[in-house]
Amino acid sequence: MSVENTPTVSLGPDSGLDQVFELAQQLRVDSVRASTAVGSGHPTSSLSAADLMAVLMTRQLRYDWQNPKNPANDHLIFSKGHASPLLYAMFLAAGAIDEEELMTTYRRDGARLQGHPTPVLPWVDAATGSLGQGIAYGVGIALAGRDLEHQSYRVWVLCGDSEMTEGSVWEALDKAGRHRLANFVAIIDVNRLGQRGPTELGWDTGAYARRAEAFGCRALVVDGHDLAAVEQALAAADDGQAPTVIVAKTVKGQGVFEVADAEGWHGKALPDDLAARAITELGGVRHLTVRGPQPPAVTPSAPAAPVEVTLPHFEVGETIATRVAFGKALAAIGARPDIVALDAEVGNSTHAEDFGKAHPERYFQMYIAEQQMIAGAVGMAARGYRPYATTFAAFLTRAHDFIRMAAVSQISMSLCGTHCGVEIGADGPSQMGLEDLAMMRAVHGSTVLYPSDATSAAALTAAMAYLDGISYLRTTRGAYPVLYASDETFPVGGSKTLRASDSDKVTLIGAGVTLHECLAAADRLAAENIPVRVVDLYSVKPLDLDMLARAAQETGALVVVEDHHPEGGMGEAVLSALAAQRLAPAVVHLAVRNLPGSGTPSELLDNAGISRTHIIRTAQDLAAR
Amino acid sequence: MSVENTPTVSLGPDSGLDQVFELAQQLRVDSVRASTAVGSGHPTSSLSAADLMAVLMTRQLRYDWQNPKNPANDHLIFSKGHASPLLYAMFLAAGAIDEEELMTTYRRDGARLQGHPTPVLPWVDAATGSLGQGIAYGVGIALAGRDLEHQSYRVWVLCGDSEMTEGSVWEALDKAGRHRLANFVAIIDVNRLGQRGPTELGWDTGAYARRAEAFGCRALVVDGHDLAAVEQALAAADDGQAPTVIVAKTVKGQGVFEVADAEGWHGKALPDDLAARAITELGGVRHLTVRGPQPPAVTPSAPAAPVEVTLPHFEVGETIATRVAFGKALAAIGARPDIVALDAEVGNSTHAEDFGKAHPERYFQMYIAEQQMIAGAVGMAARGYRPYATTFAAFLTRAHDFIRMAAVSQISMSLCGTHCGVEIGADGPSQMGLEDLAMMRAVHGSTVLYPSDATSAAALTAAMAYLDGISYLRTTRGAYPVLYASDETFPVGGSKTLRASDSDKVTLIGAGVTLHECLAAADRLAAENIPVRVVDLYSVKPLDLDMLARAAQETGALVVVEDHHPEGGMGEAVLSALAAQRLAPAVVHLAVRNLPGSGTPSELLDNAGISRTHIIRTAQDLAAR
Repeated sequence: MSVENTPTVSLGPDSGLDQVFELAQQLRVDSVRASTAVGSGHPTSSLSAADLMAVLMTRQLRYDWQNPKNPANDHLIFSKGHASPLLYAMFLAAGAIDEEELMTTYRRDGARLQGHPTPVLPWVDAATGSLGQGIAYGVGIALAGRDLEHQSYRVWVLCGDSEMTEGSVWEALDKAGRHRLANFVAIIDVNRLGQRGPTELGWDTGAYARRAEAFGCRALVVDGHDLAAVEQALAAADDGQAPTVIVAKTVKGQGVFEVADAEGWHGKALPDDLAARAITELGGVRHLTVRGPQPPAVTPSAPAAPVEVTLPHFEVGETIATRVAFGKALAAIGARPDIVALDAEVGNSTHAEDFGKAHPERYFQMYIAEQQMIAGAVGMAARGYRPYATTFAAFLTRAHDFIRMAAVSQISMSLCGTHCGVEIGADGPSQMGLEDLAMMRAVHGSTVLYPSDATSAAALTAAMAYLDGISYLRTTRGAYPVLYASDETFPVGGSKTLRASDSDKVTLIGAGVTLHECLAAADRLAAENIPVRVVDLYSVKPLDLDMLARAAQETGALVVVEDHHPEGGMGEAVLSALAAQRLAPAVVHLAVRNLPGSGTPSELLDNAGISRTHIIRTAQDLAAR
Repeated sequence: MSVENTPTVSLGPDSGLDQVFELAQQLRVDSVRASTAVGSGHPTSSLSAADLMAVLMTRQLRYDWQNPKNPANDHLIFSKGHASPLLYAMFLAAGAIDEEELMTTYRRDGARLQGHPTPVLPWVDAATGSLGQGIAYGVGIALAGRDLEHQSYRVWVLCGDSEMTEGSVWEALDKAGRHRLANFVAIIDVNRLGQRGPTELGWDTGAYARRAEAFGCRALVVDGHDLAAVEQALAAADDGQAPTVIVAKTVKGQGVFEVADAEGWHGKALPDDLAARAITELGGVRHLTVRGPQPPAVTPSAPAAPVEVTLPHFEVGETIATRVAFGKALAAIGARPDIVALDAEVGNSTHAEDFGKAHPERYFQMYIAEQQMIAGAVGMAARGYRPYATTFAAFLTRAHDFIRMAAVSQISMSLCGTHCGVEIGADGPSQMGLEDLAMMRAVHGSTVLYPSDATSAAALTAAMAYLDGISYLRTTRGAYPVLYASDETFPVGGSKTLRASDSDKVTLIGAGVTLHECLAAADRLAAENIPVRVVDLYSVKPLDLDMLARAAQETGALVVVEDHHPEGGMGEAVLSALAAQRLAPAVVHLAVRNLPGSGTPSELLDNAGISRTHIIRTAQDLAAR
């Protein structure tokens, strides 16, 4: 498989298109070699886009491969992440990785050259492989580059044609169009064949172009194997006028006769013998290197001066919703210049708009497009900002796949889901977040916070800005009394014990509205001479193991009450933590087991079996055991 | 608030537009009255669309209000579900509900007139309120009507303008266009104002029209308050030629001077005094009734004859992937004429395409559009079909909000997620379903199944067709030995104990690949004279409580091993079930706590701490306790 026939030659912006063709062939050969060596991967999806990428990296991509952190570097995102052999072959041509790494580690255990690219590689901004996402991250980065960093870099996104059926693609292009992101270029590799056969639109490049234009982008249709045409289109895209979608008609498996435009070759490495023939057909192994256009020199900006953040103050006993406290705290921490906030057209309900009023230049209205809201946050986080993205807890489920992938990207960002649980009342179940704790707990490396009062909500809102990974704040619609003075601290992984005595017979554990129900129940139980402990579980993940151990040992019985479906929420978090410590108190779990309707908050809490009435009855039973 | 000024008059298709105007005013008045009476709701969002709906229900909507199950009825879906006052006012005008119900129960506890419509109401096909969904359900129903039921009904969807930024809307219109659904009409109520201010596109009706056309639909732009224009557009939409999007320019709060086109009135009932003035301005309370066009008479079809389903047979010991068995079983149960299957362009990997080959007329290729795949399934389920929707487990997260809402709709449908866990190997984390059990367990009323061999996979695939609610089958990429003979039964809520003795010191609980790891571990432990029990937990929700109780009592220690993140999966399901029974064995939970990369399945299982090596070590520790 190593038919070497070309000496090492270095290509630059001035190299002729004949040389660029040689580079394209090298990218093809290396895509075939790397995938055949490991026996898996997507060579044919790489071959279709090789010409596009060869022109891009020699002519347009301004990139300092030795310094991927250079803030003036362009960005290249493979939205079709399965074409990783091509991307990694580009890294090799750029001298960023060496041949041995590509040929012996691709897709292997412990390697950074994974099946789909992730930011474990310093030249990768965000993990892709769930289709329709890379283009959305690209919009986030382009927004950050123009409106936050004020850098002149461009964002180039390589899309597959199959992924254009994902709605998220149109959320992304809508935002590219609305914001007139002239620094954004999507290149659609229209190779006509998806995983299982022809794509929905086949080679109807006009249909792609009409859609892109209708969404406010400029569309350029080209033959993706005509190097001169590609060169011209890429140059035209760089005129600073408009976001551009280059619709490139290509052939899947281009350059290899036996697989070109053939079904049945998606996601399959070529067998050794076919790979050998393919490499020969492609002209053999080459060792071209590329030094493409370089980014402009930038003066490093002075490190931002430390900023004093003054959190809002709330009086103990005053009634205020945690979502209101979140909004005020978010506006306050906006004093930190790296904080940005994104809204999905509900900022007046979530109170994220408080940030928008205080820091309009760092507030991004994404309208009702939760996937793009999260993707925008990921893109900005990839550029060093600390995003807060907020919508109703129920509607964060819309972006579940983006949140999952952000964890793969090891992005640090803060999410806030408001209007959780049946507590919201009359609007009914469509607006109730009853699955969000399960969703957010299962995200790798996540932190899940659930304050019960304004003071803790403000403190935790601020704390999230310093946490690694994805942190989630769950807030409540209604107003409840402030429980804590402003000087109280709320370490992540802690809890607050609000009622305790040496003779407690039961521990009531709540958060949000259910903590207030637990407190009311405790008062009533105290009047019945049943002393109970009450714990504010504001940190659901991680969870306060010491508190749990004490409560289990000292009271022997726990009641966990949550405004969430029974699965995956606070109750199961507590059970997991107890099991890990080999503790076995009696645990009764009150959660929303019914399908709620409309009603007042107290009616709905009662219907769901999580109101003070049910807590009292449960505690009485446990105390009598 | 009851300024009565009109006697009861009945309107029909031949009534003049002056009468239709009176009806529109009545719908407005009743929207105001109902929301003011309860003090919440969205009257201004109802007022903008009242003229559209008054024309529709008198002129075009062929509906037998006394028989909502009439298979020839048209379908009306409020994608802007928050305009429920308008929908319910239409129900009142149609005589489907009475005035007392609307004025005294709307949004109240226990009422069927919830804040957002749900199918608790017999005239509602699917719950809405999460925006961008109703239009997608409408496409599913239109597909069912034309291609499955062969009925001539039309599907009318009322959309808000704000929701047009949801990507799911474009997935829906793409499918409407691709399938040339001439029985589908979306009406966009372009009232320019969203919840927090102006929408992204304002009154740029041309932009909406260009987008709809680019996605293959016919667009008609009208003044949504010009009854004659609306009448003409609705009639034009009914020419059987193409899917139609009517872009109607309207005014939010139309008809009430004090709130018309004004910001700050979204989602707010008018105060009593303003409501009184509004009703006067609107001409007072009316009691018009409507008898609109009636559906054509249809001969009831004979009930389908019972069908014999012969499931595929697998030999014990043969190695075969559960996804392969799923595909074969799905094709087999396709003998039932109500079974339909939907794919998201991965049918060759998930093996759903086996169904497509056997029953092409009931196989729907939705391409890579998971939200529309689920919405299509919901629409078909609403029409009495039993859909199976399949993609990679990881990519079902894309449709989380649709699955959540399907549960609110109390839809019965079957989902299959393939390629779960780190077991998939080299493709890496973007393709690994590691959160799907948490997501699917937390869905209200769901069933979660996770077979470990081909026989059980086939049996459970068939069993799902008889389950109420949303059922989920989790399948594995790799091939593993068949464990069960064809005559074995797998009741939902059961389990299989594969190794057991009176002296078992530990119970190993697995499913999918981890069951095979548990079996290997058990063999090794047996050789070390550590007898362990092994349980196949094929039914994760509901879970086999009796088995757990026996295992807890007889072995005292459980090891739960799952190829899923630790939160919300099998481990926590087991802990919940134990806690509910007040059982407290030692429980060790092995799950994927790392961020995986690429590698071979066995390397990745080992890295994650869920391989036989880790199970053996854990069991040894527990046995020595």
